[in-house]
This record gives sequence, structure tokens and C-alpha cells, in this order.
Amino acid sequence: MSAIPESFVQTTARLSDEVTKPFPSSQKRYVVGSRPDIRVPMREVTLTPTHTSDDIEENPPVFVYDTSGPYTEPSARIDLLAGLADVRTAWIEERGDTELLDGPTSEFGRRRQNDPALASLRFEHIRTPRRAKPGRNVSQMHYARKGIVTPEMEYVAIRENMRLDELRADPRYAKVLRQHRGQSFGAALPETITPEFVRDEVARGRAIIPANINHPELEPMIIGRNFRVKVNTNIGNSAVTSSIEEEVEKMVWSARWGGDTLMDLSTGSNIHETREWVLRNAPVPIGTVPIYQALEKVDGKPEELTWELFRDTLIEQAEQGVDYFTIHAGVLLRYVPLTADRVTGIVSRGGSIMAKWCLAHHQENFLYTRFAEICEIMAAYDVSFSLGDGLRPGSIADANDAAQFAELETLGELTKFAWEHDVQVMIEGPGHVPLQMVQENVTKELKDCYEAPFYTLGPLITDIAPAYDHITSGIGAANIGWYGTAMLCYVTPKEHLGLPNKQDVRDGIITYKIAAHGADLAKGLPGAQIRDNALSKARFEFRWEDQFNLSLDPERAREYHDQTMPHDSHKVAHFCSMCGPHFCSMKITQDVRDYAKANRIDDPEQAIETGMQQKAEEFRREGAEIYKEV
Amino acid sequence: MSAIPESFVQTTARLSDEVTKPFPSSQKRYVVGSRPDIRVPMREVTLTPTHTSDDIEENPPVFVYDTSGPYTEPSARIDLLAGLADVRTAWIEERGDTELLDGPTSEFGRRRQNDPALASLRFEHIRTPRRAKPGRNVSQMHYARKGIVTPEMEYVAIRENMRLDELRADPRYAKVLRQHRGQSFGAALPETITPEFVRDEVARGRAIIPANINHPELEPMIIGRNFRVKVNTNIGNSAVTSSIEEEVEKMVWSARWGGDTLMDLSTGSNIHETREWVLRNAPVPIGTVPIYQALEKVDGKPEELTWELFRDTLIEQAEQGVDYFTIHAGVLLRYVPLTADRVTGIVSRGGSIMAKWCLAHHQENFLYTRFAEICEIMAAYDVSFSLGDGLRPGSIADANDAAQFAELETLGELTKFAWEHDVQVMIEGPGHVPLQMVQENVTKELKDCYEAPFYTLGPLITDIAPAYDHITSGIGAANIGWYGTAMLCYVTPKEHLGLPNKQDVRDGIITYKIAAHGADLAKGLPGAQIRDNALSKARFEFRWEDQFNLSLDPERAREYHDQTMPHDSHKVAHFCSMCGPHFCSMKITQDVRDYAKANRIDDPEQAIETGMQQKAEEFRREGAEIYKEV
Repeated sequence: MSAIPESFVQTTARLSDEVTKPFPSSQKRYVVGSRPDIRVPMREVTLTPTHTSDDIEENPPVFVYDTSGPYTEPSARIDLLAGLADVRTAWIEERGDTELLDGPTSEFGRRRQNDPALASLRFEHIRTPRRAKPGRNVSQMHYARKGIVTPEMEYVAIRENMRLDELRADPRYAKVLRQHRGQSFGAALPETITPEFVRDEVARGRAIIPANINHPELEPMIIGRNFRVKVNTNIGNSAVTSSIEEEVEKMVWSARWGGDTLMDLSTGSNIHETREWVLRNAPVPIGTVPIYQALEKVDGKPEELTWELFRDTLIEQAEQGVDYFTIHAGVLLRYVPLTADRVTGIVSRGGSIMAKWCLAHHQENFLYTRFAEICEIMAAYDVSFSLGDGLRPGSIADANDAAQFAELETLGELTKFAWEHDVQVMIEGPGHVPLQMVQENVTKELKDCYEAPFYTLGPLITDIAPAYDHITSGIGAANIGWYGTAMLCYVTPKEHLGLPNKQDVRDGIITYKIAAHGADLAKGLPGAQIRDNALSKARFEFRWEDQFNLSLDPERAREYHDQTMPHDSHKVAHFCSMCGPHFCSMKITQDVRDYAKANRIDDPEQAIETGMQQKAEEFRREGAEIYKEV
Repeated sequence: MSAIPESFVQTTARLSDEVTKPFPSSQKRYVVGSRPDIRVPMREVTLTPTHTSDDIEENPPVFVYDTSGPYTEPSARIDLLAGLADVRTAWIEERGDTELLDGPTSEFGRRRQNDPALASLRFEHIRTPRRAKPGRNVSQMHYARKGIVTPEMEYVAIRENMRLDELRADPRYAKVLRQHRGQSFGAALPETITPEFVRDEVARGRAIIPANINHPELEPMIIGRNFRVKVNTNIGNSAVTSSIEEEVEKMVWSARWGGDTLMDLSTGSNIHETREWVLRNAPVPIGTVPIYQALEKVDGKPEELTWELFRDTLIEQAEQGVDYFTIHAGVLLRYVPLTADRVTGIVSRGGSIMAKWCLAHHQENFLYTRFAEICEIMAAYDVSFSLGDGLRPGSIADANDAAQFAELETLGELTKFAWEHDVQVMIEGPGHVPLQMVQENVTKELKDCYEAPFYTLGPLITDIAPAYDHITSGIGAANIGWYGTAMLCYVTPKEHLGLPNKQDVRDGIITYKIAAHGADLAKGLPGAQIRDNALSKARFEFRWEDQFNLSLDPERAREYHDQTMPHDSHKVAHFCSMCGPHFCSMKITQDVRDYAKANRIDDPEQAIETGMQQKAEEFRREGAEIYKEV
């Protein structure tokens, strides 16, 4: 008999109605890899044909990177109470280097599992945790360095390519494949991503595949600057607001709208149980900041934190399946005074907790001194490091200062150390940085951290727009992504003001999908321009439905259009509400094209060169006659 | 007896209630110049003091550039039926180079004025039009080149400085005046802007002061890359939607939220009357695209346009007071075929009209061949050119192509020509441009157009986000502003989908205020960081009200905060809904500061240098003992 409260059951029902429907004119497609259980999802958007005066031109489908997991698959049976189907267990088991445990090995994990008072909150199908056999390392980096191409690596290669090789061979795609040359700032984006390329990038530490062996539900993805730029979203309850079902709903919503990874930043009640629900239903990698939960365990008093308590928290979360941990191991005692004259001191929660601990004990940060032991835990479950920027600037004034950059150098040192243990690493970055100082962050990170993937929050390029910080930060994010950041951590309109609701999550994600895609275009990611070209072609040809369906948010595009043009007939109309039926530049341009076709003017380039001079002379002569200087 | 319909009277009443209230904790201040009728408005935001454990620190007021005119001045009597008070007539009359006309000299203007059927639409206090005396040139550029510093120039200098000299002399501002060095790409931003500097910039053509002698209501402002970056907004009815009162309301709304200039792009009914209402109530310069109205006069058939009809339209609008005209004189016959293979052809309405005219007549664009005559009209009223980019790219695919750049070169030629007639010029720019190709637009414009101010729409850095194009374009706008664009033309969320409503206008403006301010910070505009610093200080010190009041949109910031923390007590609480009362990084940071103060660690820089090496060695030794390579 289920102890799950009615409210959760209701959320499930509503979600399967609201959130799990496919996008319009879209179908989930799976590309099968070298073995039948490598089935890589992508979304195929079907387009209507173009009707010209003398012909019908087919517009071939566009393939879109799809983070939504089975949630947009009509044939999938979604049951949040049961969790998602398994994607990776066979691959993990085949490797023969892990063992199933009897149950949680963390003290806290056992306590929560056995507490009858938590029955109504507890996910009912908790997986038996798995761990590396003694002496084994199960990280993707470890395999990569041994020369092994894992199914995860092959999956990622197929996913990143998005059938580009097939499209190149298909003449229907010739026009939409046209693309400007990028400016890559040293990124090396191959024309085709092979599994071997993925392996090599992971082995070098230039990319990571966050994939805890206890999160077999996830669809593998890669974070690195030679792949498409990714977007992380944050959810999480706090002592003030939010329930478990709200967090689960936000996670599903985030995956639907394109979040590539998700951090559960809960700091309120029942963090352990919330995380279990989120993980078991998450098709994307999940990250956490374990120090948040550790702090809850000592009633919010940083000075009472101990290594033993933190270690237990790491194991607790690793055995639930968290894919990456933010660890603020670079906040060193000697850096703390560097922040005293800042306008906004230390704004990272993790950073401020560790700073307070360091000062209270006048000892070095235990995350730093115990880093080797942390690496051992990470390697046993394949949890990736997200080395936290605990001293990141919280205002324009504090950008790129001594505290921030001193910590970044230490993160570089820790990166090397983690790599010696074959543990995957990405590096967190700021924060608040004016536009002219953004690039320095990437340049320094790539150098000091040996090209480990950079994962940045924004940055916000000004402090003066609370309620619009998805935008202030989206500007910084597009730029920093272009310069070489591998993953962008989203910011919602509620940043600095409150916790985001579902609509804020959607606004934040779409803003960051724009930034990430803008960065991909700017770097010259092969194939990135297909969607822009196809959408612009649809726009120009008044294929309204196709324009909506190709957009990042088809629902809102349609809704906005319908506010002034609500009738179905308008969706095929050759005009829009901006100009009305008699006066439309797109319509006139079509006339221009027809004319140009009929009255072919040869070699227009030549015509410009000679014509320009001639006309200018004549014109100047004429002008000079009419006017005198007054 | 008034013929004005009740709906308009009601709009007036609602506006004075909704839109004309001052911003919270803000007061309109006027800085008086060298003569008592130079009264330059700015908004003073009053802040609360900081309470520390042992002291109370005063936070001095912050001054904000204010575009709202008398609308946010509680003592002003606002009557949309009567129009705004006069700011400039005395200055214009004193110069003795203009004369009052008997009435409109355009045929169309006379016809509309005398048509009894239009009584219910007609503004009741139409000004008698004014024109330069024969042989005189009344442009600000003409005065500037003669060495005359006009009251308009002095006004602008005071407005741009925003009391910065006084603040520098005031020790209370020492902390918030701290600012990062900018990267200016050749802009020369002086520490203090003098009237003479303004004159020199206008004389060189590097800046313009759009200020038609028939728009004496406007508060002068300047557009140039050595001044703060400006934002233009667009309104306008179309055949499908919108009434006069809606357009007037949007104009007032635009000025309230920070639009520096406004274009009336109406293409529907009663364009002439709509414009009169807008101008008589506008404290900001108003621009138009005269070809739109000309096209209406020939029932939307471009091929029926004539120079005579267009000339009459220019005079009609110049005598109403339009401050700048978009003129698509660079769309030359020989450039049109260059657009035939584009993905989105010609997307500029003006550009497509002229292209169609050129092809229909197989003649050169009459805006080009008659450019000297147009200059004569511009000089007689001081209308500034906004040379239109009729061949701008409408998609990422078409960015920076031969058609776009050929036209830009012609705009440079026309700039030189206009300058020979002392007519002010700015140059319009794209459009849709991927991030890595944005800077080339500015570099080429500055070179080809001899540093005439660049005025760009966005650019949108991707095509795939209709309904979010304020954001796709805001990213491009911040970047292009940083590189040297003087004014950014806003884009609303409805771009490509429909006409914006009031909320869309607000979203568009705030996005562009962010972009413009981000560009100012990046260029290193003196004093630009004060607002960021003051807001971040307020944020760090939990002065919630000050944080709201200093933001670009205080109302929405407060509203978002209140969604999770509705009580008044929360606005003084030392925590927020993101983390809850027990766990707040800002609170912890304050503890860190107190500790650092009490246990002063000397010379932290030195401590880092030696400590880093030492610790790293120790750490590595320890790690090596614990681990073996697996």
C-alpha cells in the first residue's frame, strides 16, 4: 500500500497531461549505435513544403538536440512514482568492475531509509546502490585513458553529430547547410564527432561525461568546448518555500525546455528524499553542492562541520546517483582576507560556509586538505568534480579581483591532482563581470586549469536590473560561451529576489538556450546554422506554422502571434500584423526576386564597381550646382 | 467645444494616474545652466543609511539619466489634449534665422488641416510651423561648425555629465565611484563633458542632436559614441491594429521606462493625426520613415511613388516637428540583384519599397538622385538623417553580405554629401548577425561613414527564438554598443510575430537599457558604475528597498520579491527566500569581515605566494601516500 500523499499523485497526473506532450510537428527519433541498446534520441521537426508560382519545393525535416528524455515520447509510460526506465545498467554491469551493495553505506542514508516517519516522503523504488570493486576506478576518464570507448562515449558522439553526415549527403539540405565561418578562440570543432574523438577529449580532461553508476536512468551527454555549449538549470527548495513534488515538476519542466543538466540546490527540509525523487525521474545528469546538506545536518552552523560528516554526505549522495558535486576546495584560509574590501564580500553560499569554517578554526579548508580522499570517493562512483568558485564576484565592482583569481589558480592545482586519480573535473566560473572583462576569465581558466571544461554562471554584465537578470546574464553567457565556456549555468528572472517558479525556469532556460546557440554559431559548430536557416526560410515564405515549430518555444511564439492574428486563416496568410495585408516587405521582396529572375542583370559585382564611381561623380556635380554654402 | 472622443479623454485620465507617478524614492531635479531657461532634468534616487554594529553610514543619493520629461514630475500639469510645455522656443527665436509660416506649406498638411471630417481626430493646439529664413541653415551642425555653442549643446553637456564633477568632490561618493578600466575601441570618453566638447563632436559629425525647430517640446539629447549609449523605441499603428490614443500612451510609456528617442512607424490610418498627437506630447526626439506614409498616399503601390509626393511628405512631417527621417537612399538599382539569392531577401520595408520602385521604373532610386534637394529640406528645419539600411540582413545567413556592405559604402558617400550641407547624419545598421561577425559592422561603418554615429537594430544573434527576440537582439546590442554603436534600436518580444503592446514595450526598453548600460560599462564611460556599485552595496547590506529603487524597473523587482516574501518585515530582514533565515552567504560574509577586522592578517598577497607553494607540496606528498594508481 502506498504511503505517497495524494498531492504527489495529482502532480503526476497533471504532468503527464501538461508537460509530457510532444512539441508540435515533432517526433522522437532514435539513432541506433553499434549495439541495439545504444538508442540516441533526437527530435525531428517536420516541415511543410514551399509553394512557389511554378513549383512545390520540399522542406526536409530538421533534427534538434533533445534533452527531454522519454517525457516527450507519447508511447512512453511515465510514472513519477516508479521512476524512469533504465538506460545504462547493462553497460555498467558488463564492465565487471562494480558491485551491488547491501544498502546505503552512509550512516545518514541508512538512517533516512529506516525512519518510519519518512514513509510518506520516500520514493518507493529506491535502487540498490552500486560501487566500484575495491581498488577499481569506474570513471569515464579512467576508461578513456585506457583507450576504451565506452557505450556512453559512442552515445555522446551520435548525439552531438545529430545525423550531420547523412544530411551532408542529402541534396535537399544543401541550402540550409550554408554556414558562416566561426571564430573559435582555439576550440577545435571537428566536422564529424567520432567516438574516438570523444574518448580522446575525455582522456585529456578537455571534456567530461557526468554519469554516476547509480544514475543509470540518464541519457549520456558531454561537456567540453569542442562540443555544443550546454545549459545547466538549478532547482531546489529552501526553508521558506517549495515541496518535493514542485521540485520534481521543475526538473521535468527543465528537461522539456532544454536544460542539459540540473543542479538540486535544496537547503530546506527533506533534502535526501527530494533528491531521490529527482534522480529516479531525471533523464539528465544531476549535480548538487553537498556542503549545503552537510550544513543542514549541523543546524546551519558552519563552524560545526567536520570532515567525517561531510564524507558521509558525499557517500550518501554518490550512492543515490548524483552525477557531479560542487566542491569549494579552492577557498583557502589565506584568500579570505582578500575579500574584506569587496563591495559584496563572498556571495557563494558554499564559499562563505567554508570561509567561516576556516576562520572559526583557523585551519585550512578541509575540502582542500582532504581532497585526495574526496577523489577516492568520486572515482568509486564516477561522480565528476565541479570545482566551485567560492570566491566569485557578486558584483561588477568585485570582478576579476585578487581573491577570484587566486582561487582559480588553486582550482587548477586541484584539477591536476584529480586527473592523477582519473577523476573528471569541470571548473565553475563567475558571476558578475562587465563585458570587457569576460574573456579574461576564459583565457585564465583554460591556462590555469589545463583546459578543463569551464562552467559559468552568467556572468551578469551589470548589477542594475534585478527582475531581468536572466537577460543581464544571458548577454554575458553568450559571450563567455563564444570565448570557450563549455556549459552555462542559467539565471532566472527571480535571481536576487526569490525562488523561481515554473515560468521563471522556462524563461531562464530559453534565454540560456539562446546564449548557448549564439555561442555555437559564433564558434562555428558544424551544422549549428541549419535551424536558423530553416526557420528564416519558413519566415520569409510565410510558413507560420513551420516558423513556430522550429523555434525554441513554439508555444509562446504561437501565442504571441495569435494575440493580434488569432484566426487559423492568418497562419497561411502572406502578411502579418506588423504591416497589414497591403504592405509587406517580404511580399515585395518576392516580387523583386521574380523581377530579377526575369530581367537577369549579369555580373552585378562588376556593375557595382564601375557604376559606383560614375554615379558618384555625376551626383556630386549636380549637387554642387544646386547648392551654395549658407 | 471639443470634438475629441471620450476614449481619448479617458486615456488621459488613466495615464496621469498610472504612468505619470514618479519612481519610488525618486525626485526630479533640475540642474540650471548658464541661463535660467536651461534646466536639465535628472532623477535623484534617495537611499537609506547603512546600520553596522558600531556606526551609521550615510548612503548619498544616486543620480539617474532621466528621459521621462515632465511625466514623472508630480507638480507638472499633464494634459495630453494640450501637449507639453515649451522648452526651446526662446532659443530658436533668439537665433533670428527662422520665420513663422502662415500654416503648413505641404499640400497634404493643408488638406488634412482643413478637412472637417477629421475634427474628432485632430490635435487642438497645433503649433504654427516654423522654417529657416531663405538661404539660412538652422541645423545644430551648422552652428557647431561656425563655433557657436547653442543652449541645446550646453543642455546636452549637463545632461551627459550627470553632476559627476560634484560627486567626485564629495567624499561620500569615494566608494561608489570606483570603476574598472574600459575597452573603448577608439571611442574617446572625456572625464568631464564640456559644452565645447559637444560642439566639437557635432561639428565633426561624430554626434548628432536631433532637434527639429518645430519640436520645441523636446529635451535635447545627443547621439554619438563618445557619450552614453542611447536606446530608440518604435511604436506605430498598422492597417490591422491600434488607435491614436494607444500610440500616444505607448510613447509616454516609452519615455517613462527610459527610451531616449522614439520612432513612429505607423502604416495604417490617420498617420498624420497620430503623429501630431505624439509630437506635441513627446519630451524625446521623434523619428519617422517618411516613405511609409508616402506609400499610404498611393494606396500601397510602390511603383506609383513620385519624388513630388515624397517631397511633400517630407515637408509635411518636418513642419509637424519630426526630428529625424529614415531615408533609404542607399538602395541602388544595381544592388538589388545582389539580394536575389539571400535566404530572406530584402526585409526592410523601406528597402523593399525602393527596390520595387527601382525595378519597376528601371531607374535609380529617387532618394539618391534627389538627395541634394532632401538635404535642403533637412537643413531648413534641422531634421537629422537616419540613413536607412534598406538592404540589411533579415537572417543570420544573410549577415555581412555583398548587398549589405555595398549599401553601407553608399551611405558613407551620402554622409559626406549631407555634411557638405551641414546636415546631421546617423547611419542605420543591422539586423541579424551572428556574434563573431558583429564587430565588423561597426569597424566598417566607422571607416566608410567617417565616424557618423551608428544606430543599429539589435542585431539578433540567432533566428531561432521568436517570442524572445528582445533577448536574442539584446545580446547583439550590448556587443555592438560596446564596439562603438551610438544608439540601439530596441526589439520587443513580439518582433516577427505581431505589434507590441504596452508590456512588450516595457520589456523591450528594459532589455535595451541593460544592453546600453552594459556597453557604457564596457567602454569605460566615467561614472557609469556608480549605479551598479550603489545597488550592489544595498543588496549586500539587505537594504531591499534601496535595491528595488536603484534598479531599472523598481516595480517589477519589488513584485518578484513579494511573490515569495510578501510581508513588509521581510524588506528589512537580513535574509531572503533563496536561502531562508538560517543560511545566508551575505550574512556569513559579514561575519567573515568582522573576523578579518578583528584578526587582521597582514599582507595577504605575500601570504598567498609563500603559502601556496608550501601547502601544495605538503598536500601532494600526503595524497601520494594514500593513493596508488588503479
